[in-house]
Amino acid sequence: MADGGDPGMREEFHTQLSGLREQLGEMCRLAATAMRSACEAVSRNDIDLARRVVAADAELDRARDRCDGTAQQLLALQAPVARDLRLVLTAVYCSDKIERMGDLAAHIADSVRLAHPEPAVPPELAGAFDHLGRIAVEMADRLTELVSRTDGCCFAELNETDKTVDTLHAGVMATITDPAWSHGVPAAMSLALLARYYERFADQAVSVAKRLDFAVTGEIPAA
Amino acid sequence: MADGGDPGMREEFHTQLSGLREQLGEMCRLAATAMRSACEAVSRNDIDLARRVVAADAELDRARDRCDGTAQQLLALQAPVARDLRLVLTAVYCSDKIERMGDLAAHIADSVRLAHPEPAVPPELAGAFDHLGRIAVEMADRLTELVSRTDGCCFAELNETDKTVDTLHAGVMATITDPAWSHGVPAAMSLALLARYYERFADQAVSVAKRLDFAVTGEIPAA
Repeated sequence: MADGGDPGMREEFHTQLSGLREQLGEMCRLAATAMRSACEAVSRNDIDLARRVVAADAELDRARDRCDGTAQQLLALQAPVARDLRLVLTAVYCSDKIERMGDLAAHIADSVRLAHPEPAVPPELAGAFDHLGRIAVEMADRLTELVSRTDGCCFAELNETDKTVDTLHAGVMATITDPAWSHGVPAAMSLALLARYYERFADQAVSVAKRLDFAVTGEIPAA
Repeated sequence: MADGGDPGMREEFHTQLSGLREQLGEMCRLAATAMRSACEAVSRNDIDLARRVVAADAELDRARDRCDGTAQQLLALQAPVARDLRLVLTAVYCSDKIERMGDLAAHIADSVRLAHPEPAVPPELAGAFDHLGRIAVEMADRLTELVSRTDGCCFAELNETDKTVDTLHAGVMATITDPAWSHGVPAAMSLALLARYYERFADQAVSVAKRLDFAVTGEIPAA
Protein backbone atom coordinates (compact mmCIF):
# COMPACT_ATOMS: atom_id res chain seq x y z
CA MET A 1 0.00 0.00 0.00
CA ALA A 2 1.12 3.51 -0.70
CA ASP A 3 0.41 4.89 2.71
CA GLY A 4 1.81 2.09 4.85
CA GLY A 5 4.27 -0.78 4.64
CA ASP A 6 8.00 -0.59 4.90
CA PRO A 7 10.02 2.47 3.80
CA GLY A 8 11.69 0.52 0.97
CA MET A 9 8.37 -0.26 -0.66
CA ARG A 10 7.17 3.32 -0.24
CA GLU A 11 10.31 4.58 -1.91
CA GLU A 12 9.91 2.14 -4.77
CA PHE A 13 6.34 3.31 -5.14
CA HIS A 14 7.28 6.96 -5.36
CA THR A 15 10.01 6.20 -7.86
CA GLN A 16 7.44 4.44 -10.04
CA LEU A 17 5.00 7.33 -9.68
CA SER A 18 7.51 9.93 -10.77
CA GLY A 19 8.57 7.59 -13.57
CA LEU A 20 4.95 7.62 -14.74
CA ARG A 21 4.91 11.40 -14.64
CA GLU A 22 8.12 11.49 -16.71
CA GLN A 23 6.67 9.08 -19.26
CA LEU A 24 3.62 11.30 -19.62
CA GLY A 25 5.88 14.35 -20.01
CA GLU A 26 7.91 12.55 -22.65
CA MET A 27 4.70 11.79 -24.55
CA CYS A 28 3.69 15.47 -24.46
CA ARG A 29 7.13 16.41 -25.68
CA LEU A 30 6.87 13.95 -28.59
CA ALA A 31 3.42 15.30 -29.51
CA ALA A 32 4.72 18.89 -29.42
CA THR A 33 7.70 17.95 -31.59
CA ALA A 34 5.46 16.12 -34.06
CA MET A 35 3.17 19.15 -34.32
CA ARG A 36 6.08 21.59 -34.66
CA SER A 37 7.59 19.56 -37.51
CA ALA A 38 4.20 18.97 -39.15
CA CYS A 39 3.55 22.72 -39.23
CA GLU A 40 7.01 23.34 -40.64
CA ALA A 41 6.42 20.71 -43.31
CA VAL A 42 3.13 22.41 -44.24
CA SER A 43 4.55 25.92 -44.36
CA ARG A 44 7.70 24.94 -46.29
CA ASN A 45 5.93 22.28 -48.39
CA ASP A 46 8.69 19.93 -47.22
CA ILE A 47 7.70 16.40 -48.16
CA ASP A 48 10.76 14.75 -46.59
CA LEU A 49 10.07 16.33 -43.24
CA ALA A 50 6.40 15.37 -43.61
CA ARG A 51 7.38 11.73 -44.17
CA ARG A 52 9.63 11.79 -41.10
CA VAL A 53 6.74 13.08 -38.95
CA VAL A 54 4.48 10.27 -40.18
CA ALA A 55 7.19 7.67 -39.53
CA ALA A 56 7.99 9.06 -36.07
CA ASP A 57 4.42 8.52 -34.90
CA ALA A 58 5.22 4.89 -34.07
CA GLU A 59 7.51 6.14 -31.29
CA LEU A 60 4.60 7.90 -29.61
CA ASP A 61 2.52 4.72 -29.91
CA ARG A 62 5.25 2.79 -28.12
CA ALA A 63 5.54 5.50 -25.45
CA ARG A 64 1.79 5.14 -24.86
CA ASP A 65 2.11 1.38 -24.43
CA ARG A 66 4.96 1.87 -21.93
CA CYS A 67 2.96 4.47 -20.01
CA ASP A 68 -0.07 2.16 -19.88
CA GLY A 69 2.13 -0.69 -18.72
CA THR A 70 3.60 1.39 -15.90
CA ALA A 71 0.13 2.54 -14.82
CA GLN A 72 -1.17 -1.03 -14.76
CA GLN A 73 1.80 -2.27 -12.79
CA LEU A 74 1.37 0.51 -10.26
CA LEU A 75 -2.31 -0.29 -9.86
CA ALA A 76 -1.75 -4.02 -9.58
CA LEU A 77 1.27 -4.01 -7.26
CA GLN A 78 0.95 -0.82 -5.25
CA ALA A 79 -2.79 -0.19 -5.01
CA PRO A 80 -2.41 3.59 -4.82
CA VAL A 81 -5.11 5.68 -3.15
CA ALA A 82 -6.38 9.26 -3.26
CA ARG A 83 -4.07 11.69 -5.04
CA ASP A 84 -1.71 8.94 -6.19
CA LEU A 85 -4.59 6.96 -7.64
CA ARG A 86 -5.81 10.07 -9.42
CA LEU A 87 -2.41 10.53 -11.02
CA VAL A 88 -2.35 6.94 -12.24
CA LEU A 89 -5.86 7.25 -13.67
CA THR A 90 -4.93 10.55 -15.27
CA ALA A 91 -1.99 8.84 -16.94
CA VAL A 92 -4.23 6.07 -18.33
CA TYR A 93 -6.64 8.67 -19.66
CA CYS A 94 -4.12 11.18 -20.96
CA SER A 95 -1.74 8.75 -22.62
CA ASP A 96 -4.51 7.89 -25.04
CA LYS A 97 -5.31 11.56 -25.75
CA ILE A 98 -1.66 12.44 -26.29
CA GLU A 99 -1.20 9.48 -28.59
CA ARG A 100 -4.18 10.85 -30.55
CA MET A 101 -2.51 14.29 -30.68
CA GLY A 102 0.45 12.56 -32.34
CA ASP A 103 -1.92 10.91 -34.86
CA LEU A 104 -3.39 14.30 -35.72
CA ALA A 105 0.08 15.82 -36.21
CA ALA A 106 0.86 12.89 -38.52
CA HIS A 107 -2.39 13.52 -40.45
CA ILE A 108 -1.35 17.17 -40.86
CA ALA A 109 2.08 16.13 -42.13
CA ASP A 110 0.47 13.60 -44.44
CA SER A 111 -1.57 16.35 -46.08
CA VAL A 112 1.73 17.65 -47.49
CA ARG A 113 2.32 14.30 -49.15
CA LEU A 114 -1.25 14.10 -50.47
CA ALA A 115 -1.13 17.58 -52.01
CA HIS A 116 2.41 17.22 -53.41
CA PRO A 117 3.79 18.86 -55.54
CA GLU A 118 1.16 21.54 -54.82
CA PRO A 119 1.38 23.09 -51.36
CA ALA A 120 -1.24 21.74 -48.91
CA VAL A 121 -2.24 25.31 -48.04
CA PRO A 122 -2.68 28.07 -50.66
CA PRO A 123 -1.02 31.47 -50.00
CA GLU A 124 -4.21 33.22 -48.88
CA LEU A 125 -4.63 30.73 -46.01
CA ALA A 126 -0.96 30.37 -45.05
CA GLY A 127 -1.29 32.99 -42.29
CA ALA A 128 -4.29 31.31 -40.68
CA PHE A 129 -2.72 27.85 -40.74
CA ASP A 130 0.60 29.20 -39.39
CA HIS A 131 -1.32 30.76 -36.54
CA LEU A 132 -3.26 27.55 -35.87
CA GLY A 133 0.01 25.65 -35.86
CA ARG A 134 1.77 28.04 -33.49
CA ILE A 135 -1.08 27.83 -31.00
CA ALA A 136 -1.26 24.03 -31.23
CA VAL A 137 2.48 23.73 -30.57
CA GLU A 138 2.23 26.16 -27.65
CA MET A 139 -0.57 24.12 -26.12
CA ALA A 140 1.46 20.92 -26.35
CA ASP A 141 4.53 22.71 -24.91
CA ARG A 142 2.42 23.97 -22.03
CA LEU A 143 1.21 20.46 -21.27
CA THR A 144 4.79 19.15 -21.29
CA GLU A 145 5.67 21.76 -18.70
CA LEU A 146 2.56 21.19 -16.58
CA VAL A 147 2.85 17.40 -16.46
CA SER A 148 6.19 17.62 -14.67
CA ARG A 149 4.71 19.73 -11.86
CA THR A 150 2.52 18.44 -9.06
CA ASP A 151 0.64 21.67 -8.38
CA GLY A 152 -0.14 23.42 -11.64
CA CYS A 153 -3.61 23.85 -13.08
CA CYS A 154 -3.93 24.71 -16.74
CA PHE A 155 -7.42 23.82 -17.90
CA ALA A 156 -8.82 27.37 -17.68
CA GLU A 157 -5.84 28.72 -19.61
CA LEU A 158 -5.91 26.11 -22.39
CA ASN A 159 -9.68 26.30 -22.62
CA GLU A 160 -9.33 30.03 -23.27
CA THR A 161 -6.66 29.46 -25.93
CA ASP A 162 -8.95 26.93 -27.55
CA LYS A 163 -11.43 29.72 -28.33
CA THR A 164 -8.81 31.36 -30.58
CA VAL A 165 -8.39 28.02 -32.34
CA ASP A 166 -12.15 27.83 -32.89
CA THR A 167 -12.20 31.36 -34.32
CA LEU A 168 -9.31 30.63 -36.70
CA HIS A 169 -10.98 27.36 -37.71
CA ALA A 170 -14.23 29.22 -38.46
CA GLY A 171 -12.27 31.75 -40.53
CA VAL A 172 -10.73 28.99 -42.66
CA MET A 173 -14.16 27.43 -43.20
CA ALA A 174 -15.60 30.81 -44.24
CA THR A 175 -12.80 31.34 -46.77
CA ILE A 176 -13.08 27.94 -48.43
CA THR A 177 -16.88 28.09 -48.70
CA ASP A 178 -16.90 31.65 -50.02
CA PRO A 179 -18.21 32.03 -53.61
CA ALA A 180 -14.89 33.76 -54.39
CA TRP A 181 -12.96 30.55 -53.56
CA SER A 182 -10.88 29.76 -56.63
CA HIS A 183 -9.09 26.48 -55.85
CA GLY A 184 -11.92 24.06 -56.48
CA VAL A 185 -13.75 21.44 -54.45
CA PRO A 186 -10.98 18.90 -53.76
CA ALA A 187 -8.69 21.59 -52.31
CA ALA A 188 -11.52 23.05 -50.20
CA MET A 189 -12.29 19.62 -48.84
CA SER A 190 -8.70 18.80 -47.99
CA LEU A 191 -8.41 22.14 -46.21
CA ALA A 192 -11.63 21.54 -44.25
CA LEU A 193 -10.19 18.26 -42.97
CA LEU A 194 -6.77 19.82 -42.38
CA ALA A 195 -8.29 22.64 -40.30
CA ARG A 196 -10.24 20.07 -38.36
CA TYR A 197 -7.01 18.22 -37.41
CA TYR A 198 -5.66 21.38 -35.76
CA GLU A 199 -8.97 21.95 -34.02
CA ARG A 200 -9.10 18.37 -32.73
CA PHE A 201 -5.45 18.57 -31.61
CA ALA A 202 -6.35 21.62 -29.52
CA ASP A 203 -9.46 19.83 -28.17
CA GLN A 204 -7.35 16.89 -27.04
CA ALA A 205 -4.88 19.27 -25.37
CA VAL A 206 -7.76 20.87 -23.44
CA SER A 207 -9.01 17.45 -22.46
CA VAL A 208 -5.54 16.47 -21.18
CA ALA A 209 -5.37 19.74 -19.22
CA LYS A 210 -8.75 18.94 -17.66
CA ARG A 211 -7.49 15.60 -16.38
CA LEU A 212 -4.20 17.07 -15.17
CA ASP A 213 -6.23 19.50 -13.06
CA PHE A 214 -8.23 16.55 -11.77
CA ALA A 215 -5.03 14.81 -10.71
CA VAL A 216 -4.14 17.88 -8.65
CA THR A 217 -7.52 18.92 -7.25
CA GLY A 218 -9.66 15.76 -7.34
CA GLU A 219 -12.29 17.59 -9.32
CA ILE A 220 -12.92 17.65 -13.06
CA PRO A 221 -13.17 21.36 -13.97
CA ALA A 222 -16.40 22.41 -15.65
CA ALA A 223 -16.00 23.57 -19.25
CA MET B 1 -8.55 -7.35 -1.85
CA ALA B 2 -10.37 -9.16 -4.61
CA ASP B 3 -8.81 -12.52 -4.01
CA GLY B 4 -8.81 -12.60 -0.23
CA GLY B 5 -10.65 -11.09 2.74
CA ASP B 6 -14.04 -12.03 4.07
CA PRO B 7 -16.81 -13.40 1.84
CA GLY B 8 -18.99 -10.31 2.39
CA MET B 9 -16.37 -8.00 0.93
CA ARG B 10 -15.76 -10.34 -1.98
CA GLU B 11 -19.45 -10.39 -2.77
CA GLU B 12 -19.65 -6.59 -2.58
CA PHE B 13 -16.66 -6.43 -4.91
CA HIS B 14 -18.25 -8.70 -7.50
CA THR B 15 -21.50 -6.76 -7.34
CA GLN B 16 -19.58 -3.56 -8.06
CA LEU B 17 -17.68 -5.21 -10.91
CA SER B 18 -20.82 -6.42 -12.63
CA GLY B 19 -22.35 -3.00 -12.01
CA LEU B 20 -19.42 -1.50 -13.91
CA ARG B 21 -20.00 -3.92 -16.77
CA GLU B 22 -23.67 -2.94 -16.85
CA GLN B 23 -22.81 0.76 -16.90
CA LEU B 24 -20.49 0.19 -19.83
CA GLY B 25 -23.21 -1.80 -21.60
CA GLU B 26 -25.70 1.00 -20.98
CA MET B 27 -23.26 3.47 -22.52
CA CYS B 28 -22.90 1.31 -25.64
CA ARG B 29 -26.68 1.05 -25.85
CA LEU B 30 -27.01 4.86 -25.64
CA ALA B 31 -24.36 5.32 -28.34
CA ALA B 32 -26.13 2.79 -30.60
CA THR B 33 -29.48 4.54 -30.04
CA ALA B 34 -27.95 7.94 -30.77
CA MET B 35 -26.42 6.65 -34.00
CA ARG B 36 -29.63 4.90 -35.06
CA SER B 37 -31.66 8.10 -34.54
CA ALA B 38 -29.00 10.30 -36.14
CA CYS B 39 -29.05 8.15 -39.28
CA GLU B 40 -32.83 8.24 -39.35
CA ALA B 41 -32.76 12.03 -38.99
CA VAL B 42 -30.33 12.24 -41.92
CA SER B 43 -32.26 9.92 -44.21
CA ARG B 44 -35.68 11.47 -43.42
CA ASN B 45 -34.31 15.03 -43.12
CA ASP B 46 -36.08 15.12 -39.75
CA ILE B 47 -34.87 18.20 -37.89
CA ASP B 48 -36.89 17.51 -34.72
CA LEU B 49 -35.38 14.08 -34.35
CA ALA B 50 -31.94 15.58 -35.07
CA ARG B 51 -32.42 18.08 -32.23
CA ARG B 52 -33.47 15.31 -29.85
CA VAL B 53 -30.29 13.37 -30.65
CA VAL B 54 -28.14 16.44 -29.94
CA ALA B 55 -29.99 17.09 -26.65
CA ALA B 56 -29.78 13.43 -25.56
CA ASP B 57 -25.98 13.49 -25.74
CA ALA B 58 -25.83 14.97 -22.22
CA GLU B 59 -27.21 11.67 -20.89
CA LEU B 60 -24.24 9.78 -22.32
CA ASP B 61 -21.89 12.34 -20.76
CA ARG B 62 -23.48 11.69 -17.37
CA ALA B 63 -23.28 7.93 -17.90
CA ARG B 64 -19.56 8.34 -18.57
CA ASP B 65 -19.08 10.28 -15.35
CA ARG B 66 -20.93 7.56 -13.40
CA CYS B 67 -18.85 4.84 -15.03
CA ASP B 68 -15.62 6.69 -14.23
CA GLY B 69 -16.78 7.18 -10.64
CA THR B 70 -17.51 3.48 -10.20
CA ALA B 71 -14.14 2.54 -11.69
CA GLN B 72 -12.31 4.92 -9.37
CA GLN B 73 -14.16 3.67 -6.33
CA LEU B 74 -13.36 0.09 -7.23
CA LEU B 75 -9.69 0.91 -7.66
CA ALA B 76 -9.50 2.90 -4.43
CA LEU B 77 -11.48 0.60 -2.16
CA GLN B 78 -11.03 -2.87 -3.62
CA ALA B 79 -7.61 -2.78 -5.26
CA PRO B 80 -8.53 -5.34 -7.92
CA VAL B 81 -5.82 -7.46 -9.54
CA ALA B 82 -5.30 -9.40 -12.79
CA ARG B 83 -8.45 -9.93 -14.83
CA ASP B 84 -10.56 -7.75 -12.53
CA LEU B 85 -8.06 -4.90 -12.78
CA ARG B 86 -8.06 -5.26 -16.54
CA LEU B 87 -11.83 -4.90 -16.61
CA VAL B 88 -11.71 -1.74 -14.50
CA LEU B 89 -8.99 -0.23 -16.71
CA THR B 90 -10.96 -1.22 -19.80
CA ALA B 91 -13.97 0.63 -18.39
CA VAL B 92 -11.89 3.79 -17.79
CA TYR B 93 -10.56 3.62 -21.32
CA CYS B 94 -13.77 2.61 -23.10
CA SER B 95 -16.15 4.98 -21.33
CA ASP B 96 -14.27 7.85 -22.93
CA LYS B 97 -14.37 6.25 -26.39
CA ILE B 98 -18.09 5.47 -26.13
CA GLU B 99 -18.81 9.01 -24.97
CA ARG B 100 -16.97 10.17 -28.08
CA MET B 101 -19.12 7.84 -30.22
CA GLY B 102 -22.12 9.70 -28.81
CA ASP B 103 -20.52 13.05 -29.71
CA LEU B 104 -20.03 11.86 -33.28
CA ALA B 105 -23.66 10.70 -33.53
CA ALA B 106 -24.67 14.16 -32.27
CA HIS B 107 -22.42 15.79 -34.91
CA ILE B 108 -24.14 13.66 -37.58
CA ALA B 109 -27.57 14.70 -36.30
CA ASP B 110 -26.46 18.33 -36.18
CA SER B 111 -25.58 18.22 -39.87
CA VAL B 112 -29.34 17.92 -40.52
CA ARG B 113 -29.91 21.18 -38.66
CA LEU B 114 -27.01 22.91 -40.44
CA ALA B 115 -28.21 21.92 -43.90
CA HIS B 116 -31.91 22.61 -43.19
CA PRO B 117 -34.18 23.01 -45.13
CA GLU B 118 -31.95 21.24 -47.69
CA PRO B 119 -31.24 17.59 -46.91
CA ALA B 120 -27.76 17.00 -45.43
CA VAL B 121 -27.13 14.28 -48.03
CA PRO B 122 -28.08 14.66 -51.72
CA PRO B 123 -29.97 11.77 -53.39
CA GLU B 124 -26.93 10.38 -55.22
CA LEU B 125 -25.14 9.79 -51.90
CA ALA B 126 -28.14 8.65 -49.83
CA GLY B 127 -27.35 4.98 -50.46
CA ALA B 128 -23.73 5.29 -49.32
CA PHE B 129 -24.62 7.20 -46.15
CA ASP B 130 -27.45 4.78 -45.33
CA HIS B 131 -24.98 1.95 -45.65
CA LEU B 132 -22.41 3.75 -43.46
CA GLY B 133 -25.11 4.37 -40.87
CA ARG B 134 -26.32 0.76 -40.82
CA ILE B 135 -22.80 -0.53 -40.29
CA ALA B 136 -22.08 2.02 -37.55
CA VAL B 137 -25.26 1.07 -35.68
CA GLU B 138 -24.45 -2.63 -36.05
CA MET B 139 -20.97 -2.05 -34.62
CA ALA B 140 -22.40 -0.25 -31.58
CA ASP B 141 -25.04 -2.97 -31.12
CA ARG B 142 -22.33 -5.62 -31.26
CA LEU B 143 -20.35 -3.81 -28.55
CA THR B 144 -23.46 -3.59 -26.33
CA GLU B 145 -23.81 -7.35 -26.63
CA LEU B 146 -20.12 -8.08 -26.11
CA VAL B 147 -19.70 -5.89 -23.04
CA SER B 148 -22.20 -7.96 -21.08
CA ARG B 149 -20.24 -11.17 -21.69
CA THR B 150 -17.06 -12.17 -19.92
CA ASP B 151 -15.63 -14.36 -22.67
CA GLY B 152 -16.29 -12.81 -26.05
CA CYS B 153 -13.66 -11.36 -28.34
CA CYS B 154 -14.76 -9.05 -31.09
CA PHE B 155 -11.79 -7.00 -32.24
CA ALA B 156 -11.02 -9.14 -35.31
CA GLU B 157 -14.66 -9.01 -36.37
CA LEU B 158 -15.10 -5.24 -35.92
CA ASN B 159 -11.74 -4.54 -37.48
CA GLU B 160 -12.90 -6.42 -40.57
CA THR B 161 -16.20 -4.49 -40.67
CA ASP B 162 -14.20 -1.27 -40.40
CA LYS B 163 -12.65 -1.99 -43.80
CA THR B 164 -16.10 -1.73 -45.41
CA VAL B 165 -16.54 1.62 -43.65
CA ASP B 166 -13.22 2.80 -45.09
CA THR B 167 -14.27 1.70 -48.59
CA LEU B 168 -17.62 3.50 -48.33
CA HIS B 169 -15.88 6.60 -46.95
CA ALA B 170 -13.44 6.57 -49.88
CA GLY B 171 -16.39 6.26 -52.28
CA VAL B 172 -18.06 9.34 -50.81
CA MET B 173 -14.81 11.30 -51.08
CA ALA B 174 -14.41 10.25 -54.72
CA THR B 175 -17.95 11.39 -55.55
CA ILE B 176 -17.69 14.81 -53.95
CA THR B 177 -14.28 15.57 -55.49
CA ASP B 178 -15.33 14.39 -58.95
CA PRO B 179 -15.39 17.14 -61.62
CA ALA B 180 -19.00 16.09 -62.27
CA TRP B 181 -19.98 17.10 -58.70
CA SER B 182 -22.83 19.62 -59.06
CA HIS B 183 -23.67 20.71 -55.50
CA GLY B 184 -20.84 23.20 -54.95
CA VAL B 185 -18.01 23.56 -52.45
CA PRO B 186 -19.91 24.13 -49.18
CA ALA B 187 -22.00 20.97 -49.68
CA ALA B 188 -18.91 18.93 -50.61
CA MET B 189 -17.16 20.16 -47.50
CA SER B 190 -20.05 19.38 -45.19
CA LEU B 191 -20.28 15.90 -46.69
CA ALA B 192 -16.53 15.33 -46.26
CA LEU B 193 -16.87 16.13 -42.55
CA LEU B 194 -20.09 14.11 -42.27
CA ALA B 195 -18.45 11.05 -43.83
CA ARG B 196 -15.56 11.48 -41.44
CA TYR B 197 -17.91 11.35 -38.44
CA TYR B 198 -19.13 7.89 -39.48
CA GLU B 199 -15.57 6.78 -40.12
CA ARG B 200 -14.42 8.02 -36.70
CA PHE B 201 -17.43 6.40 -35.01
CA ALA B 202 -16.38 3.07 -36.51
CA ASP B 203 -12.75 3.69 -35.46
CA GLN B 204 -13.82 4.29 -31.87
CA ALA B 205 -15.92 1.12 -31.95
CA VAL B 206 -12.87 -0.86 -33.12
CA SER B 207 -10.82 0.73 -30.38
CA VAL B 208 -13.41 -0.25 -27.74
CA ALA B 209 -13.44 -3.81 -29.13
CA LYS B 210 -9.66 -3.91 -28.82
CA ARG B 211 -9.82 -3.05 -25.13
CA LEU B 212 -12.69 -5.47 -24.48
CA ASP B 213 -10.50 -8.23 -25.89
CA PHE B 214 -7.70 -7.05 -23.61
CA ALA B 215 -10.03 -7.33 -20.60
CA VAL B 216 -10.65 -10.97 -21.52
CA THR B 217 -7.22 -12.10 -22.70
CA GLY B 218 -4.74 -9.70 -21.07
CA GLU B 219 -3.31 -8.89 -24.46
CA ILE B 220 -4.00 -5.95 -26.75
CA PRO B 221 -4.71 -7.49 -30.15
CA ALA B 222 -2.47 -6.32 -33.00
CA ALA B 223 -4.28 -4.35 -35.70
